[in-house]
Amino acid sequence: MITIEKIEQMQACIMAERQKGKTIGFVPTMGYLHEGHVALLERARKENDIVVLSIFVNPLQFGPNEDFDRYPRDFERDYKMAERAGVDIIFYPSVPEMYPHEPSVTVKVHERVDVLCGKSRPGHFDGVATVVTKLFHIVMPHRAYFGLKDAQQVAVIDGLIRDFHFPIELVAVPTVREDDGLAKSSRNVYLSEQERQEAPALYAALQKGKALIEAGERDVETVRKAIVHHIEQHTTGVIDYVEVYSYPELKPLETLQGKIILALAVRFTNARLIDNIVMNVQ
Amino acid sequence: MITIEKIEQMQACIMAERQKGKTIGFVPTMGYLHEGHVALLERARKENDIVVLSIFVNPLQFGPNEDFDRYPRDFERDYKMAERAGVDIIFYPSVPEMYPHEPSVTVKVHERVDVLCGKSRPGHFDGVATVVTKLFHIVMPHRAYFGLKDAQQVAVIDGLIRDFHFPIELVAVPTVREDDGLAKSSRNVYLSEQERQEAPALYAALQKGKALIEAGERDVETVRKAIVHHIEQHTTGVIDYVEVYSYPELKPLETLQGKIILALAVRFTNARLIDNIVMNVQ
Repeated sequence: MITIEKIEQMQACIMAERQKGKTIGFVPTMGYLHEGHVALLERARKENDIVVLSIFVNPLQFGPNEDFDRYPRDFERDYKMAERAGVDIIFYPSVPEMYPHEPSVTVKVHERVDVLCGKSRPGHFDGVATVVTKLFHIVMPHRAYFGLKDAQQVAVIDGLIRDFHFPIELVAVPTVREDDGLAKSSRNVYLSEQERQEAPALYAALQKGKALIEAGERDVETVRKAIVHHIEQHTTGVIDYVEVYSYPELKPLETLQGKIILALAVRFTNARLIDNIVMNVQ
Repeated sequence: MITIEKIEQMQACIMAERQKGKTIGFVPTMGYLHEGHVALLERARKENDIVVLSIFVNPLQFGPNEDFDRYPRDFERDYKMAERAGVDIIFYPSVPEMYPHEPSVTVKVHERVDVLCGKSRPGHFDGVATVVTKLFHIVMPHRAYFGLKDAQQVAVIDGLIRDFHFPIELVAVPTVREDDGLAKSSRNVYLSEQERQEAPALYAALQKGKALIEAGERDVETVRKAIVHHIEQHTTGVIDYVEVYSYPELKPLETLQGKIILALAVRFTNARLIDNIVMNVQ
């Protein structure tokens, strides 16, 4: 496994591998890896000759009052996890390497962004789409792996790849969870002991919503309210949103039918957690 | 020479050529080819194994009151000129092929756009950068050829390629002119007979400015006014702008030094013409 910090070197290295006919699998991350990332890396390992992991905490996708400076970083730990997962190349650029000056061009995302996390994070997905565009040109992968835990991000990247015709296959990988159901996240470390005990209630609330639908409920608001109620009863967190939309279009629904997403975001003292279930309704 | 109308087919074709180790030269145009385009094609022919010409009148770069519908189109003529210039592939997509729906992502250009043509054409370069991003992913060239006649476009594409790390070399090709000095343009056909006779005065005005500088003039406003005066004296056109900036940064200058551009746009009855000279000042 090698670590590359420079864009030019990364491009030259990939060009050489592609020339040899090798396939490239790419897992873009902000580091502080957990089993969710490992699931992406393992999937990429299975499907490609070369696996590239990028670690870059992208300032462009953080709002002015968000946790860019506080975002957890631990390269040595990431390095060991990457090695165990069979990564070939870690791309680990600095902020000045990726943004030597104010960006003169950025990607603007017009759809699938004014809801869920995008609603309370204006410009967030523009920042994500911009850095992913840059990374795609630097790593030139055949396949890119994203976790379904951030289902809105998957929807946005799907639109980016399709509308900009990137010759890249998007692979969406299911959310990895703790034994108690809590979705793995780099931000879980910020939960207090009590909050950590409450946090599995988020997934339980989504499952409750799913069970209602499976039992025949088709009214959006009834399902939404049941999820809200469960969170309020079982956690001290403050609900940012609980929504039920079509997926991946993320449009409001008249009635529950087709591919849908149940999604939530809840703020605890020092961490905002998100989770979702995507399901098909007959 | 083959014509390809579908994105998927174009990508498959180029993938196959790249796999064989062929280099790809790309000339993106809006068609209605003239000797300016031919100069780009000939340069691309010399430097690459495969030459791809795209013909696509991009609605996204036209303002609501601009000439998208009136923009001249003549595919048969273009086809013959492309064949003579040694083109291998014409990429000729329809508007629904390139934009099957409202674009869910676009490129936003933040620098080098609020001056010259960009000033009176808000969003124009966003439209250019968006379609060029799409075309770069579809044609996957090693080198892309643009004419210096639209020097601002070259400056914007330079920023796009650099900031998004496209693995593509930008080749800027000098403006091709009629014998009387008028820069070749698809829009020249819209000039009345009298206007066509006046039009060489645009380049003459720029040359006058250049001569002043070469004779020792270093005051920006003096040079600018001399160019304006020449146009007003020798044409019935209405000046849109006459500007002197640094190049390719397109920043205002205190004094004439370094690489600079003298640029103008003039409106005639049915055509708006642009021209420029880029020069080094000691």
